[in-house]
Amino acid sequence: MVSRQCGVRYLSRVALTPISWTAAGDVRLLDQRRLPSEEVYLEVGTAEGLAEAIRRMQVRGAPLIGIAAAMGLVAGLRERRGAGRDAFLAHLREGVTLLGATRPTAVNLQWALGRMTRAAAAVPDDGTAGALWDRLHAEATAIWEEDRAMCRRIGEYGLPLVPDGAKVLTHCNAGALATGGIGTALAPIYLAHEQGRQVHVYVDETRPVLQGARLTAWELQHAGVPCTLIADAAAGALMRQAKVDVVLVGADRICANGDFANKIGTYGLAVLARHHGVPFYCAAPWTTVDPTLADGDLIPIEQRPAEEVTAIAGRPVAPAGAAVLNPAFDVTPARYVTGYLTDRGLVQPPFGADPV
Amino acid sequence: MVSRQCGVRYLSRVALTPISWTAAGDVRLLDQRRLPSEEVYLEVGTAEGLAEAIRRMQVRGAPLIGIAAAMGLVAGLRERRGAGRDAFLAHLREGVTLLGATRPTAVNLQWALGRMTRAAAAVPDDGTAGALWDRLHAEATAIWEEDRAMCRRIGEYGLPLVPDGAKVLTHCNAGALATGGIGTALAPIYLAHEQGRQVHVYVDETRPVLQGARLTAWELQHAGVPCTLIADAAAGALMRQAKVDVVLVGADRICANGDFANKIGTYGLAVLARHHGVPFYCAAPWTTVDPTLADGDLIPIEQRPAEEVTAIAGRPVAPAGAAVLNPAFDVTPARYVTGYLTDRGLVQPPFGADPV
Repeated sequence: MVSRQCGVRYLSRVALTPISWTAAGDVRLLDQRRLPSEEVYLEVGTAEGLAEAIRRMQVRGAPLIGIAAAMGLVAGLRERRGAGRDAFLAHLREGVTLLGATRPTAVNLQWALGRMTRAAAAVPDDGTAGALWDRLHAEATAIWEEDRAMCRRIGEYGLPLVPDGAKVLTHCNAGALATGGIGTALAPIYLAHEQGRQVHVYVDETRPVLQGARLTAWELQHAGVPCTLIADAAAGALMRQAKVDVVLVGADRICANGDFANKIGTYGLAVLARHHGVPFYCAAPWTTVDPTLADGDLIPIEQRPAEEVTAIAGRPVAPAGAAVLNPAFDVTPARYVTGYLTDRGLVQPPFGADPV
Repeated sequence: MVSRQCGVRYLSRVALTPISWTAAGDVRLLDQRRLPSEEVYLEVGTAEGLAEAIRRMQVRGAPLIGIAAAMGLVAGLRERRGAGRDAFLAHLREGVTLLGATRPTAVNLQWALGRMTRAAAAVPDDGTAGALWDRLHAEATAIWEEDRAMCRRIGEYGLPLVPDGAKVLTHCNAGALATGGIGTALAPIYLAHEQGRQVHVYVDETRPVLQGARLTAWELQHAGVPCTLIADAAAGALMRQAKVDVVLVGADRICANGDFANKIGTYGLAVLARHHGVPFYCAAPWTTVDPTLADGDLIPIEQRPAEEVTAIAGRPVAPAGAAVLNPAFDVTPARYVTGYLTDRGLVQPPFGADPV
């Protein structure tokens, strides 16, 4: 199946990989808005198309957004390889600005774009547009491959948190669909499952966009990991009944003091976990740390459209004209966090610019 | 518009009243599953039809279920007025058993059915089926009218909790749509609004059945009370930002020690309120107290179908075959409750069989 969205081609029924290059050099993205009903891929060939896919949350997950933006830049610059160096760099800057403005909270996006900009700057002044493009292509691919390796390391460092018989609660999607690899919060779960440990995952459905129901339950089922879906509001009762051994969540930005932003509802879970004596871990690649922000009050929180709350699948579930507050994220202060599970190990704040 | 459901007639676009008698003696119910998209009324003439409407949550809200069951019994016994006394009483018992089995958690249903049974028993032994029916009709009408008066008193006792400028958070629907009157948790809000106080209500959407989005936001909007809809998981961030002065919720059953059952998510809100120093009140008519249960561990918790979580408006939002845990209610221990707002005042446990 092929459909169109501002220069984007849709293809359905390709084996599951949330991101990849096509033979032609487009970015192939699994359209995450259409899961779990349809496994449809879109192919994006421009920075504009990629920015639109990010805004629509067809591609989401802090690490994956960074990877996708880098790859989208490269795809969009293919046609500029024959241009002059200055024109090429001007187009690069335009793409960086456009992509950087799509979502404000996750820092991985800014990190990836900054890395692409620095990669271009590192090419000698006599380098052609073609040489610049080759360097950017290599950089984007490296960002993707490094993310895959970081996921694996997060999983390995996190294995002790998921012993045999563990009952884990997670929120939103911090899995394979959010990264270039096996995920962040879900990485230790996948490795524990691979090793034959019995693990059970309670999945918050994660309103309003339902990333837990649509994505996390789907990818865990895909991998054969036993899981149970719950309404977000059921997490408290579950903890009171001692059905949760550990909470594992992802992060969109981690400040120097350890305060972190993640999907709306994470903070409430952290309070509940603390209240019930349940360990609460934040799992993220080191690229999620923003040492320039002292604390969580400084993190910009994206407000999403009211329609995410007032309508589901196009059908109204609230009265017309209802006022809505729809922050995409909340901030969890560091004092609620048992530990930060990163590719550099299970660590504690403060987090400096070059902490390890 | 008229449609059919096991002997039930549908009529659309009648002025808002969640329950009433029709001229023919049927029970007219606002179909709460179809709000806010459609304001459709159904007319039920049998205990079976009423039981089905309760199971489908076309009528819901602990006090309203009790009223509806009593009225449904009466409607279903109309045709038995010419029968013998024993046959009439046998039909009454059948109806009581059928209606009593529809939903296990709310105690008002059992209370109303018990009251109907006792009313019949109080009719002298030489009373005809017609005399029995007249007595039951009067009793059901009294249950309804008394509930309306109880709501008003709850509102009056609760007025000091909602001063000018108050920002209230509520969960599920404990309003006019859940009762025969102006609601329980919403009653003080309506009275404060009537008196010209500025009140703002944050409404949890209340997944999975969305009573907050579909019903509470709708009835508050209807009444002109300013309100803002939020995803359930946003309540924690709201409290952390000091945007909530007080939490007001309803109850489906209150135990002797003050533990109470209410819509899933209530317990989590109570923990968050305690953590943030926000007062947390449970509002209910005295008929919600079950002095026979010592504590909340004894309350039967209804498990609802998985489809409430896995599909919305008939469209799947989770992968096929996903395991789901869908308790309709949770239990909040008394120690989290600032006070119990009832028609007998703002009270504290323990609650005996005849406490006032």
